[in-house]
Amino acid sequence: MVTNALEVNPQRLWDSLERSAEIGRFRDVGLRRLALSTEDKIMRDQFVDWAQAAGCTVDIDRLGNIFARRPGTDPSLPPVAIGSHLDTQICGGRYDGILGVMCGLEVVRTLNDRGIATRRGIEVICWTNEEGARFSPPMMGSMAFAKALTVGSVLATKDDDGITVERALDEIGYAGALPVGERAFDCYLELHIEQAPVLDKEGCDVGIVIGGYKTQALRLTLHGDTGHAGGTPMAMRRNALVGAGYVIAAVNDIGLAFAAEEARTTTTRIESFPNLPGTYAETVKLTIDFRHIDPKRFDVMRQEVDAAIAASAKKANVEIEVAEGWSWGTDLFAPECIALLKDTAAELGMPYREMRSQAGHDAYAMATLTPTAMIFTPCHDGISHNVNEAIELTRSVPGANLLLNAAVARANR
Amino acid sequence: MVTNALEVNPQRLWDSLERSAEIGRFRDVGLRRLALSTEDKIMRDQFVDWAQAAGCTVDIDRLGNIFARRPGTDPSLPPVAIGSHLDTQICGGRYDGILGVMCGLEVVRTLNDRGIATRRGIEVICWTNEEGARFSPPMMGSMAFAKALTVGSVLATKDDDGITVERALDEIGYAGALPVGERAFDCYLELHIEQAPVLDKEGCDVGIVIGGYKTQALRLTLHGDTGHAGGTPMAMRRNALVGAGYVIAAVNDIGLAFAAEEARTTTTRIESFPNLPGTYAETVKLTIDFRHIDPKRFDVMRQEVDAAIAASAKKANVEIEVAEGWSWGTDLFAPECIALLKDTAAELGMPYREMRSQAGHDAYAMATLTPTAMIFTPCHDGISHNVNEAIELTRSVPGANLLLNAAVARANR
Repeated sequence: MVTNALEVNPQRLWDSLERSAEIGRFRDVGLRRLALSTEDKIMRDQFVDWAQAAGCTVDIDRLGNIFARRPGTDPSLPPVAIGSHLDTQICGGRYDGILGVMCGLEVVRTLNDRGIATRRGIEVICWTNEEGARFSPPMMGSMAFAKALTVGSVLATKDDDGITVERALDEIGYAGALPVGERAFDCYLELHIEQAPVLDKEGCDVGIVIGGYKTQALRLTLHGDTGHAGGTPMAMRRNALVGAGYVIAAVNDIGLAFAAEEARTTTTRIESFPNLPGTYAETVKLTIDFRHIDPKRFDVMRQEVDAAIAASAKKANVEIEVAEGWSWGTDLFAPECIALLKDTAAELGMPYREMRSQAGHDAYAMATLTPTAMIFTPCHDGISHNVNEAIELTRSVPGANLLLNAAVARANR
Repeated sequence: MVTNALEVNPQRLWDSLERSAEIGRFRDVGLRRLALSTEDKIMRDQFVDWAQAAGCTVDIDRLGNIFARRPGTDPSLPPVAIGSHLDTQICGGRYDGILGVMCGLEVVRTLNDRGIATRRGIEVICWTNEEGARFSPPMMGSMAFAKALTVGSVLATKDDDGITVERALDEIGYAGALPVGERAFDCYLELHIEQAPVLDKEGCDVGIVIGGYKTQALRLTLHGDTGHAGGTPMAMRRNALVGAGYVIAAVNDIGLAFAAEEARTTTTRIESFPNLPGTYAETVKLTIDFRHIDPKRFDVMRQEVDAAIAASAKKANVEIEVAEGWSWGTDLFAPECIALLKDTAAELGMPYREMRSQAGHDAYAMATLTPTAMIFTPCHDGISHNVNEAIELTRSVPGANLLLNAAVARANR
């Protein structure tokens, strides 16, 4: 046990989360705070106010990513970055992303309380559109920062109402002056609720994340033909929605078959045309997503998914075009950051488990730029992307303290 | 063979169809002329011009149904009605509905050519929104005329852009003065392309329709819960879209199993919420439709569909709410009208086959008010609700002549 272990202020952390939970309140207990919406602007303004009140300088880049820096004693050194996001899903909870940003802020506030200076600065980052609920793909801000997306393509991305990211940034006043990605860091740490039930079930409060599940999205376009729902004989039909039905059912069956290995398959989005009574579908677009912790077993799943798509196309007499969507989780986080978290936890006498993330995170993009690792904290039953997302403060504070002490250790390198 | 058999003017009929095919042209060869759209207004105006030029009086009711009457010599007698529709599907063809209206007009024009007066008038009707492609349900105008829908509910019906029937009628100037349904007829005859391949395959040009396939639509609402596409274990998920996938697949499998009996099952429309990447579906709305010529076998299909819905709900761990949608086809058309068509065909030496309609038609609503029957003519491969819908004029003229002679026979009763 270290004698000089630092501790965050749990009540202040909770109060910040409660304030955030007022902005975009949805269905009594949840949040709908879509990226670059009015609610997102109010939350961003609140965060900037808090950061400035805590003595941070605040920079905003062209894509609205916010960088709040508590300076170090040696301004020539790149800071330790702590990031996550403030946007939510459309029926989202209060903690996904938000807990990570508030813990970053709490690190800064705690250091201020104690009058502690660090050699390197500490920089709290809010990434734009992590969720992908309004603009697709998710993790847009961090991916552009890491040059995995171009700034131009991100600015041109439209929501379902045809509003571009560029226009939405202008409307909320978060099209910043800073160029995207021109910023060096010593390392990147992110704390996040687990979004799966492992920590909660095991009664463990801290997960040290060593990498992600291998994850692949596929964007399917099913090409059939319209016809009369009554008159066209079954054998003549090329109903794209029937093809989609077979794919959805088969992909879920694959997920169920791999469930004992904690693999996942999901069909998330469907668009059917013309989608009218009396006529069957000409074209269906379908997004599927599957994840496995073991890349070799992932490849087996992928083969089964490919075979299911081919079989569905044949059975429904439609063509299915397959484009690869997002993918992540194939690389491990930086050994030096994983070791930093493990060593700090050990020094703090804090139980933890190693784990892999089943979800996508901004940390994956950052890991391509700078040494990176993540801390997970429990959420009730693993429920997430749902208004009923819930945490216990006492089970969240250990992770926050790990983040604080690890960041300070690294910042004083 | 009757010596005084009347014959329509095939070229004039074709020219009228070709003029119609210019209004709302879609994908080179098809039509997109949605109910109460600008294109529908142009077509309606053209029809009214033609009808008035042919000496008809034109009345329009509150729902835009158009009644073009060639007076009879005894104005105290209700007229013989010939109706169909001028609106199309969203990727529709040139003949569905339109051929029936143009044949009605051709009956009037042929009588004018020959200077023939009839005892009863002949009234050509264009029904509003038969297709249901813009406003649901289909056959809205005729159903309201037959009091199966209230005028108020029809006027309040919205399209996907939130525009009501009332507003759309106002915008195109077809909210007529005539009250809906206050109009007596001697009988109702409708000619329509078959929209199935039976006549085309058999080389028969005339179908005398004695009734419909028993048809039932079900509107399903699947209730699940949102959750994270990555973190939520398969066993905890309540993905409404997975429930829909199982339903779509199973319902199609039932259709395939009954295909030898010429039964049909179709899933036509799906709406999923929130329909976003990263999150699975909370709620899905699904419209399914199934049809069988034999009411007893229909009941077997219904049991199988109900069982498939229950099994899908269980497997996907969702609740499925089932509401009955449209249904029709359980009653036969009027024996006197079927006999009229058969006798007239026999007199004309015209081969025909009896058949049942697999599609819904305005005639079903009219059959509840007045003696009704239908004539089918072939369409290429049975293709319909598709831009490639095609007919041969020479194979359509026999049905038009049957309509003409039967209408005149009945009008002179």
